[in-house]
Amino acid sequence: MILGHGDDAFRFDRPIRANFSSNVYSHVDLSQLKEHLAAHLDVIGNYPEPEPYRLEAAIARRLGIDASSVCVTSGATEAIYLIAHAFSGSRSAILQPAFSEYEDACNLYGHTIEETDFSRADLFWFCNPNNPDGYVMPKEAVISLIKAHPITIFVTDQSYGFFTKEPLLSPAEALRYPNVLQLHSMTKRYAMPGLRLGYVTGCPELLDKLRAVRMPWSVNALAIEAGLYLAAHPDTAPIDLDALLAEAQRLRDALNGIPGISVDPTQTHFMLCRMEKGRAALLKDWLANERGLLIRDASNFKELDEGCFRIASQTPEENDMLVSAIREWLEALQ
Amino acid sequence: MILGHGDDAFRFDRPIRANFSSNVYSHVDLSQLKEHLAAHLDVIGNYPEPEPYRLEAAIARRLGIDASSVCVTSGATEAIYLIAHAFSGSRSAILQPAFSEYEDACNLYGHTIEETDFSRADLFWFCNPNNPDGYVMPKEAVISLIKAHPITIFVTDQSYGFFTKEPLLSPAEALRYPNVLQLHSMTKRYAMPGLRLGYVTGCPELLDKLRAVRMPWSVNALAIEAGLYLAAHPDTAPIDLDALLAEAQRLRDALNGIPGISVDPTQTHFMLCRMEKGRAALLKDWLANERGLLIRDASNFKELDEGCFRIASQTPEENDMLVSAIREWLEALQ
Repeated sequence: MILGHGDDAFRFDRPIRANFSSNVYSHVDLSQLKEHLAAHLDVIGNYPEPEPYRLEAAIARRLGIDASSVCVTSGATEAIYLIAHAFSGSRSAILQPAFSEYEDACNLYGHTIEETDFSRADLFWFCNPNNPDGYVMPKEAVISLIKAHPITIFVTDQSYGFFTKEPLLSPAEALRYPNVLQLHSMTKRYAMPGLRLGYVTGCPELLDKLRAVRMPWSVNALAIEAGLYLAAHPDTAPIDLDALLAEAQRLRDALNGIPGISVDPTQTHFMLCRMEKGRAALLKDWLANERGLLIRDASNFKELDEGCFRIASQTPEENDMLVSAIREWLEALQ
Repeated sequence: MILGHGDDAFRFDRPIRANFSSNVYSHVDLSQLKEHLAAHLDVIGNYPEPEPYRLEAAIARRLGIDASSVCVTSGATEAIYLIAHAFSGSRSAILQPAFSEYEDACNLYGHTIEETDFSRADLFWFCNPNNPDGYVMPKEAVISLIKAHPITIFVTDQSYGFFTKEPLLSPAEALRYPNVLQLHSMTKRYAMPGLRLGYVTGCPELLDKLRAVRMPWSVNALAIEAGLYLAAHPDTAPIDLDALLAEAQRLRDALNGIPGISVDPTQTHFMLCRMEKGRAALLKDWLANERGLLIRDASNFKELDEGCFRIASQTPEENDMLVSAIREWLEALQ
């Protein structure tokens, strides 16, 4: 899906002053990283490594696993398409509602989508914490599933893994199971989605299938440079996760206090909101055009309806602006 | 093919002081572009446009064509894979010797490679000027071919189009023919292969097929930012093409003066060298390890043998270093 994702400020003439629409927490201090990139702009003058070997090795060291178990990609999105490609024509099950790219990639590569009996699937895709609703499947449940279906490949998107206090299967732990691919996003943790940087971890036998279908130089040299810097300085752009999650809960409570709206429980910093009346598409346009606030119309997620939108918690001031704007719009709707 | 391309300085411990191995002319002044990027590093904080609409429009304006006839890609390499994917299972002919990614992409997407009777091909791939030998197919011959085979889609890689004085079909001219896709590289002209930026031009009906198989956000935000800057300031990083081509001919003459080596005629700044004895792989390792000079072992190009290597002309001083080092190695071989 090319259109219909979040972070689509480019669609509006008015400048966006607060962006709740992608699951990126924007208020991190990227000055150190940007300083590093500014000092290393010379890397644009050479081809990047055809596969980002050095970065794969650096990430592997940090995770305590072998470099052959890390495949760096142009954002987690490339990882999704590589997996769908490597397993072309498979039967895939997707835990819904889900990031639409799983199904789009599966459709592109001729997968059959198994909608009812998940036990028949060759691949089982799920996101943990889940986008768009912030639900975290408990670690023990994940392990049980993996063990109970040793023939199924579990594609576990942990792009938001940093943004929860719930226990998750670590990359090193997941390597105990030959049927698990984990997706990770450096973009989300470090609020740099413009650079396109993610990686997959898993058994080398599975990753070799991905490597066999990838094009050379898919990860650009500045993304690699940023990744090397962040692997060496993982505490760059620190986030106070306790404060972020507490503020997300405060935002959720405030929205739940508005008549006609309910917010799903979330175990991360973003959340799924459901309006009884009113279309999310109209609310989104009004918020962007009238208030410069950007939300994610979530009505195009499977199993969700036209009243659904998704927001990621930002600063208390920004969240307050959003809550009062939504309240105003809903009151005018009555 | 992941390994075996040029610009693989990462394979050597010794620093490379002169790089002839990719077809990039490295001695352009990128300071303005880098200054612009340094001032716009904030773009990493947002998702790029899922398809680079603004840049497509800017390039189209400069070329005098409609934005629907431009598809910006993550380097010309993404364009090659998108075309192979969009026409999965086709019969493809490739004018050899050629950049290996055409055949790799075709193989990945189940094409049959037509080796003998080109008139039977659904797609005809050729590079103009050609990599690795610098041959330019005359414009009139190209037009005749296109007209004579209206059912065949001509995939014309003009990545090196800037680097020749021979007339080529312009993107606007090529739009007269519904069966032409042209590949263009901003990387090559502006010596910034690390950023990954290319584009395809062609009839909207053909480009729609490419857009249907692409993933969102494949072009990173800094590449888009650079592209927008260069579309507005095309004279950035000027190259004296007459001087570059004259120096390339001087380099060719000097190499042809060494016994045991002959260089194919070239109409651009890079050239294909053939040794009677001696393996290009060994020469390459010796030049890199002993002299810090990087060439492209061209023995893995189809129809070429182990004595072939490719070089792109650099400064006169660097070219002289290369010539005398090659002479020394070949003399020691006797």
